Amino acid sequence: MTDLSLKEMQESGRLKIEWARNYMPVLNQIRADFEKEKPLAGHKIAMALHVEAKTAVLVETLAAGGAIVAITGCNPLSTQDDVAAALNTSENITCFAKYDCTNEEYYDAIDKVLDIDPDITIDDGADLIFKIHKERRDLIPKIIGGCEETTTGIHRLVGMEKDGALEMAVLAVNDAKTKFLFDNRYGTGQSAWDGIMRTTNLLVAGKTVVVGGYGWCGRGVAMRADGLGAEVVVTEIDPVRALEARMDGYRVMPMEQAAEIGDLFVTTTGNRDILTENHFKKMKSGAILANAGHFNVEIDLEVLKKMATSEKTVRKNIKEYVVGGKKINVLADGRLVNLAAGDGHPAEVMDMSFANQALGVKYIAENKLSNGVHKVPEEIDSYVAMLKLKSMGIVIDTLTEKQRNYMDDWEEGT
Amino acid sequence: MTDLSLKEMQESGRLKIEWARNYMPVLNQIRADFEKEKPLAGHKIAMALHVEAKTAVLVETLAAGGAIVAITGCNPLSTQDDVAAALNTSENITCFAKYDCTNEEYYDAIDKVLDIDPDITIDDGADLIFKIHKERRDLIPKIIGGCEETTTGIHRLVGMEKDGALEMAVLAVNDAKTKFLFDNRYGTGQSAWDGIMRTTNLLVAGKTVVVGGYGWCGRGVAMRADGLGAEVVVTEIDPVRALEARMDGYRVMPMEQAAEIGDLFVTTTGNRDILTENHFKKMKSGAILANAGHFNVEIDLEVLKKMATSEKTVRKNIKEYVVGGKKINVLADGRLVNLAAGDGHPAEVMDMSFANQALGVKYIAENKLSNGVHKVPEEIDSYVAMLKLKSMGIVIDTLTEKQRNYMDDWEEGT
Amino acid sequence: MTDLSLKEMQESGRLKIEWARNYMPVLNQIRADFEKEKPLAGHKIAMALHVEAKTAVLVETLAAGGAIVAITGCNPLSTQDDVAAALNTSENITCFAKYDCTNEEYYDAIDKVLDIDPDITIDDGADLIFKIHKERRDLIPKIIGGCEETTTGIHRLVGMEKDGALEMAVLAVNDAKTKFLFDNRYGTGQSAWDGIMRTTNLLVAGKTVVVGGYGWCGRGVAMRADGLGAEVVVTEIDPVRALEARMDGYRVMPMEQAAEIGDLFVTTTGNRDILTENHFKKMKSGAILANAGHFNVEIDLEVLKKMATSEKTVRKNIKEYVVGGKKINVLADGRLVNLAAGDGHPAEVMDMSFANQALGVKYIAENKLSNGVHKVPEEIDSYVAMLKLKSMGIVIDTLTEKQRNYMDDWEEGT
Amino acid sequence: MTDLSLKEMQESGRLKIEWARNYMPVLNQIRADFEKEKPLAGHKIAMALHVEAKTAVLVETLAAGGAIVAITGCNPLSTQDDVAAALNTSENITCFAKYDCTNEEYYDAIDKVLDIDPDITIDDGADLIFKIHKERRDLIPKIIGGCEETTTGIHRLVGMEKDGALEMAVLAVNDAKTKFLFDNRYGTGQSAWDGIMRTTNLLVAGKTVVVGGYGWCGRGVAMRADGLGAEVVVTEIDPVRALEARMDGYRVMPMEQAAEIGDLFVTTTGNRDILTENHFKKMKSGAILANAGHFNVEIDLEVLKKMATSEKTVRKNIKEYVVGGKKINVLADGRLVNLAAGDGHPAEVMDMSFANQALGVKYIAENKLSNGVHKVPEEIDSYVAMLKLKSMGIVIDTLTEKQRNYMDDWEEGT
Repeated sequence: MTDLSLKEMQESGRLKIEWARNYMPVLNQIRADFEKEKPLAGHKIAMALHVEAKTAVLVETLAAGGAIVAITGCNPLSTQDDVAAALNTSENITCFAKYDCTNEEYYDAIDKVLDIDPDITIDDGADLIFKIHKERRDLIPKIIGGCEETTTGIHRLVGMEKDGALEMAVLAVNDAKTKFLFDNRYGTGQSAWDGIMRTTNLLVAGKTVVVGGYGWCGRGVAMRADGLGAEVVVTEIDPVRALEARMDGYRVMPMEQAAEIGDLFVTTTGNRDILTENHFKKMKSGAILANAGHFNVEIDLEVLKKMATSEKTVRKNIKEYVVGGKKINVLADGRLVNLAAGDGHPAEVMDMSFANQALGVKYIAENKLSNGVHKVPEEIDSYVAMLKLKSMGIVIDTLTEKQRNYMDDWEEGT
Repeated sequence: MTDLSLKEMQESGRLKIEWARNYMPVLNQIRADFEKEKPLAGHKIAMALHVEAKTAVLVETLAAGGAIVAITGCNPLSTQDDVAAALNTSENITCFAKYDCTNEEYYDAIDKVLDIDPDITIDDGADLIFKIHKERRDLIPKIIGGCEETTTGIHRLVGMEKDGALEMAVLAVNDAKTKFLFDNRYGTGQSAWDGIMRTTNLLVAGKTVVVGGYGWCGRGVAMRADGLGAEVVVTEIDPVRALEARMDGYRVMPMEQAAEIGDLFVTTTGNRDILTENHFKKMKSGAILANAGHFNVEIDLEVLKKMATSEKTVRKNIKEYVVGGKKINVLADGRLVNLAAGDGHPAEVMDMSFANQALGVKYIAENKLSNGVHKVPEEIDSYVAMLKLKSMGIVIDTLTEKQRNYMDDWEEGT
Repeated sequence: MTDLSLKEMQESGRLKIEWARNYMPVLNQIRADFEKEKPLAGHKIAMALHVEAKTAVLVETLAAGGAIVAITGCNPLSTQDDVAAALNTSENITCFAKYDCTNEEYYDAIDKVLDIDPDITIDDGADLIFKIHKERRDLIPKIIGGCEETTTGIHRLVGMEKDGALEMAVLAVNDAKTKFLFDNRYGTGQSAWDGIMRTTNLLVAGKTVVVGGYGWCGRGVAMRADGLGAEVVVTEIDPVRALEARMDGYRVMPMEQAAEIGDLFVTTTGNRDILTENHFKKMKSGAILANAGHFNVEIDLEVLKKMATSEKTVRKNIKEYVVGGKKINVLADGRLVNLAAGDGHPAEVMDMSFANQALGVKYIAENKLSNGVHKVPEEIDSYVAMLKLKSMGIVIDTLTEKQRNYMDDWEEGT
Repeated sequence: MTDLSLKEMQESGRLKIEWARNYMPVLNQIRADFEKEKPLAGHKIAMALHVEAKTAVLVETLAAGGAIVAITGCNPLSTQDDVAAALNTSENITCFAKYDCTNEEYYDAIDKVLDIDPDITIDDGADLIFKIHKERRDLIPKIIGGCEETTTGIHRLVGMEKDGALEMAVLAVNDAKTKFLFDNRYGTGQSAWDGIMRTTNLLVAGKTVVVGGYGWCGRGVAMRADGLGAEVVVTEIDPVRALEARMDGYRVMPMEQAAEIGDLFVTTTGNRDILTENHFKKMKSGAILANAGHFNVEIDLEVLKKMATSEKTVRKNIKEYVVGGKKINVLADGRLVNLAAGDGHPAEVMDMSFANQALGVKYIAENKLSNGVHKVPEEIDSYVAMLKLKSMGIVIDTLTEKQRNYMDDWEEGT
């Protein structure tokens, strides 16, 4: 990409953003409203998210609402430089992210984003908020609130709140129903398989697919494996989820047993060591391992490297480890397969997540929130869902007064 | 059935109970433990549930635990007289239920059950608790707690609690995950179609099936309609649920529009007037209407009767109404199709629900609960799930210490 | 049923026929055409089919076309006496079938049907044609053709033809695509589960269902088991079919292995001894066995009876055999579970099969067919499909001339 | 790729071939047998197939059997130069294919392949056989047979045979059950979606997917669309297939109607003009069009270009046409989306197709076939299926003698 001129980079990025915009109708509607109402006029927003096309659509929506926006990445490897270049051509937007930057550059960029003196933050993993509380405490008085995109980030912020260490208001965007009910189940469910199929060119039908974990992400991955013709095996540590998996028609067993029969393994737990020494030993030669859950600790690569008598890249994004004469193939070095070997969540899913971000920022701007972690108001959730339905041409029913009364009057229901 | 001798009735009931027992392994395990430990010795339990085979297995489990049990029905039409006869042959069990009894007999039976001077109650709709609070207040001091099986019952009890009117402890058995996540989705999902198929002998494949509501029950009914080869249309009033239905591959539209294209309608909302005048007018001739949700108010039969130029029973449990020259067929008079035209929830589903009842009663007996509505402790929920898995021969994983630490330490997850 | 007066019987039968008619639109359209055109005027039709409501709709269609029809059953246990009574009230129709008649009565009825001196026959298993060739050879000269409904019948007739023993024309109705592609896959697929669910009241979800055979019938049964939430195991003797089953996501293994893990077994092979001694020994206690394939030889009941230490009816249509202390439950004595414990194929499926019969009879009447087994002309097949689509409100595309040319000109496709 | 040294090219190609080999166990087994038995010793094989890794595994299998092999491409754009380079390092193999070669180079390569004076040919579209019959008739006397991979090729060869113009024996490899039942349904079914997803990064769930045609390919594409959460609409011209689509739960309608509601269109018919002027006019803005069927005539691009007010590449392999202000996006210029925007059929599917090729070549070598198109012997088909099952660790049942007799004796089945 370094061979492209700046102009070519900008054009390339612009095309990507436009493609994504076409399939993000909710954000487009919000942008149209923002352009008229300018609800963010006078606000400065500091952002640290994956800098790629879908995020750019959010950034431009915020700018359209009157905000001045500065953004950097939340992971040095997820930045798309052409999108960054395109963003930098827009008024009121500055992007500091750079693909594959050094650690120093990475943290330097975060500082630059904070240098705009923001009153609102948007985080993916709470990096900005952490930095502010530790090193840039001077910014705290001015900040009226922040939005957090991820489960992990919220988990950490709730921890801070419990310790009395959280000195600002945070909106838990991740916990909006139009976010968490959709992005993992439908988004990861599809994009993990997209990544696996394009990387391996192997058939899913007729394979035994082992899904580690049956949370939202695991359900999505299992549902799509089933839809692609695989026999699905689920491993779990929670008995109720294990039962649900079984009632959904899947086989359920411990990973040690699943390791022997699996052709393809996808971890989705958010925990470490889902696939480790005992499992590697028992796997069939040719087994494919991918992670769709969290960090690259779900597959214990350290142990695998130690066990392996050889290790080589056999195809783009596939490393083959030979263990006891058997070949074990790991996709994307155990990093999130849908991001590291694909294009991440489809645009339509991010449309809803980022609509919650945009409306969340507006909500922060218009309300004085107390310090602590706040829920996204239910009206925002419903509004996002309604806009999405509308964009799909779907109309739904509304309660009649008689029906509303019937629901409210618990005497009648007997 | 009146032609059978009492002995024949008892034998018939005993066979039914044994059949159900064979497929209720969780309750069997609890019974085995109860027989050894007698945790209910000295307790008297008053029950008002549907008196049929699966309930009988619960009743005998409680008696095996040392309790003295009296039971009557919670609906005059759901009692199976042979099961009642069989129950009455058991020690420490008295059953007062009678099929198709008069209103007077019905309430008289409730009184008789309360005459045993119970310290624990089990309800399906809170009838016993209501009676106690209104007419048998003398019993209150002795009562240490009650269990409630249904959403409706809990809805009412929470109402009482808010008004400061609830003078006893109640365990919300319905809200146990091993209850509500399973009985509607997998139980109603299947049994509604069992009832519809056996009643109509019609093909589901190739039909347009309209499911009113996308709660747990609606999801189950839609999932099975899909599994039987139908094109599924969902109607909803909640935009998030509507979106989920769409992402699950179903069409979503208002009922007025669905009315025109549906071949078969199943209501699952818990509300009234889901199918009413506007809809009846638009339906195709031959449309089949069934309710799997709640009371017989989901399909507005009053209006339908008024609109109809003729009305006749065309097959067991099917009434044909002619409206504007078109035939509209209503199953089981709009009552719950899986109960009124079938055998209700499968045994395996009730196994989990009633295991929560049995362990709930034990929990009440062993703990001093304060007045108010209580949750079923998570350990009971997990224990029921573990027993169920065990009975299915399923083993699951457990967290290693390293994994547990990883989950707890929110610093590490960054 | 013997307690009903003849008039009540006729009314009951009439209701059943009308219900079926409402859901047999193709046959209704053919009947309307027959009424106008009277294509069967002057013809006498002898029939031996299951005498129940859907068959009655066919019989009345033929009579509406001008034919004189005599019918008897093809199985003494499948006759519904009320339907027979209703048929006998119609002009030009005589029905000789009686439920549970003696062997003598059964064959006597076949003779009576042939006594009308038919020129066309309709068979389900070739009984009429056999009788004619063996004992009623005087009828042969007048007969212009017969229709055969079943695979088995055609198998036998082709055998006769090869031996030079078939002295009449026969139309292989079974082999019409609108017949064999639909009745087993969609008809048996659903009705087998209808029969199993209503008989057992057990949950299919979460069970391991073993399907013996992956022909059209096995595919249907497996597809619906999957749709009801089961884990499906398929056994086969044909490697290509076995591979298809695997690619469809099912487990495939020998029955000896499947016997150990199955909760519910459904045989669909058309062969004998699918479940026999070795398998019974290995089964889990509580296993359910049903046959949806053919005769009652798929489950080897003779052996099972010998192995069993006890045998009793534990529920209507369920016999429990105790083998080595384990309970093995056989549904409907191993006879076709959808007929013996249900109502057989849904009306919509028989609509297509019987439309082929009606149009097949017309085709025989209008063409001089040579002796031997003939295919149903493709135009009849397409016409039946088009009528069915039309009745469902479905319109499809037609080839443009350009497209037709493109398909025909094999030079262009390069 | 031109920047790589020859050695790097060879290594890159070798890696690709090895990856494919790992997932082609049937061909590996045949290769092992071939190495021992050398059944092709003394034979010279001319091939014209897509030159990529999976084909290379076939080529090396044939060489392992003792043959001398020369190969070129059957499409200038499907050649992978690194695979070609790797092939050329093997003994007894010469590859003449070159990516993006000129027309002259393309036909020159075909001539070079024929210059080895082959006695056996392998074709994908009958190009070699055509050339031989038209321009290289001197080769005919020596040729003992050829294998043809595709429906199209066989269609053409049957045409030649009818005209008395086919002067050699040809094995219709395409018509082997282990070929045509698997490659379209499971291969195209998956790989088309792989191509669409990786190209668009859009969500399939919740979309209306219109599948043009319900042949094997259309079934596969529809089945996977359903499995990915789409609402599936099928268009057909054959009423029986249309009915099957409906019974499989899909909506069926004419393309003119489908054009209005589709979000994503996939053509699979093998015919032209499936999407043309009338349809483009009615489409929603943002519609995505892909072809998974045949040549690039299914989507009428000529008309689309004329109608469009603008046309630009908006993403790799996506061209956006603006028609009446609406955006219509065509993937891969209407060429086969799984090849042009993906990696083609998964290795496991080609494993079976090419196993039929390898065993077909052996069969030709060992039998004197008469001129004309021959079926692949059923034993080869079964053997391929058995090897595949074995490689998957799957064992199946075999008929007992009793069972075989039962099937053969048509008297018994009554």
